[in-house]
Amino acid sequence: MTTVLKLGGSVITEKDRAETLDGPALDAAADAIAAALASDAVGRLVIVHGGGSFGHHHADAHGVSTTDGTTDHVAVTDVHGAMTTLNRFVRSRLHDRDVPAVPVHPLSAASRDADGNLSLPTAQVETLLDEGFVPVLHGDGVAHAGEGVTVLSGDEIVTSLAASVDADRVGLCSTVPGVLDADDDVIPTVESFDAVADVLGASDTTDVSGGMAAKVQELLALTAPASIFGPEALDGFLDGERVGTLIE
Amino acid sequence: MTTVLKLGGSVITEKDRAETLDGPALDAAADAIAAALASDAVGRLVIVHGGGSFGHHHADAHGVSTTDGTTDHVAVTDVHGAMTTLNRFVRSRLHDRDVPAVPVHPLSAASRDADGNLSLPTAQVETLLDEGFVPVLHGDGVAHAGEGVTVLSGDEIVTSLAASVDADRVGLCSTVPGVLDADDDVIPTVESFDAVADVLGASDTTDVSGGMAAKVQELLALTAPASIFGPEALDGFLDGERVGTLIE
Repeated sequence: MTTVLKLGGSVITEKDRAETLDGPALDAAADAIAAALASDAVGRLVIVHGGGSFGHHHADAHGVSTTDGTTDHVAVTDVHGAMTTLNRFVRSRLHDRDVPAVPVHPLSAASRDADGNLSLPTAQVETLLDEGFVPVLHGDGVAHAGEGVTVLSGDEIVTSLAASVDADRVGLCSTVPGVLDADDDVIPTVESFDAVADVLGASDTTDVSGGMAAKVQELLALTAPASIFGPEALDGFLDGERVGTLIE
Repeated sequence: MTTVLKLGGSVITEKDRAETLDGPALDAAADAIAAALASDAVGRLVIVHGGGSFGHHHADAHGVSTTDGTTDHVAVTDVHGAMTTLNRFVRSRLHDRDVPAVPVHPLSAASRDADGNLSLPTAQVETLLDEGFVPVLHGDGVAHAGEGVTVLSGDEIVTSLAASVDADRVGLCSTVPGVLDADDDVIPTVESFDAVADVLGASDTTDVSGGMAAKVQELLALTAPASIFGPEALDGFLDGERVGTLIE
């Protein structure tokens, strides 16, 4: 069984303070991951983390988004450098718990064509999984034909990876406990976008960088069931429980 | 025109002192590269550097080679961490001279099958080149089916890359001025292995990790002409001159 787990950038960093880790939150996530691997509750695990306060402010400062790129190596180095720093923190906390985390930096592997379509080859990820490692990817810059380097979000990586490694389960650990209805209650199951379009808000559907509506649309397109849940439900998700909102 | 340039690990590091840069040698190489790019003497440039005193001693300490792997994440982190540190030094010296260097870490991109055959997808390298960047790769670990993670040498990367990006010229900047004959004079041209097998020594042909005989054999297999030369000839090579030993 293969699971793709996204740790939201806002979960593991202090989103309002530049390049500041949320150490206790990352420790709790690493504890849950280590426990699940030790008990064999999850099989093969790929982790993807977002940027939080590490990547976003550099991208904003340089005017780089998922569609607007840069050919300035300083901008690329700022965004990629901050994200690899965060990635080292994540791997270090996992290593402290004997989780065999190995980095896979998307800037080194992926590219976009002139239409913005992502190509992320995954033979390296699958070989690492087969050999018992836990690949850890992250939001990053990506070479983009005609644009220089654009932003590649953690969510987009999850969608691409889940399909190419044929994931059985996908989990998005977010700061909210799931997709919320008009009363802020968690919607247990989402089977079509139309059913939740109203509560997600129409304007939100144009947010390509990770708004909830975009997440739901992308996850609906996957063959694997996907869950959106809060940090308190990470243990449960990794144990195979149904948590948060199930999108299938 | 696309050029693949290898900077030997023994050129840019103090080979006898663990994790010690040869700063003046790296500065001289970065000067030559920046000057050639500024004068348009080279077109598209991919740089690959070896491990020198950064990668090799970690690989040796953990018993990891190009064929014997490890499933220990500590070993992977030691080798890869040392090589990414060296890669940051190389990029930093290039950035100081406005060379738009961007890292491509082979561990994040490549894999070997159970027969040891390397797969190194290069759409990211080609897109970076098209967008005006200078991709900088390095000797690294690589996921290897059935072995865990093995060593991927800079020379092997050069051979693979040169073919997949359809390089017009390949240069190996080494500590020797070329392939030497029995009198230690540089052999100007090598067109077949048989012609130089004697001076290279039969035992050397089994050295897969970068001996001169292995280099010559791999370079003979390329369609692009390849040159082996010393640091003093790097300027000339980048200016399009014929330097050291030409292998074609």
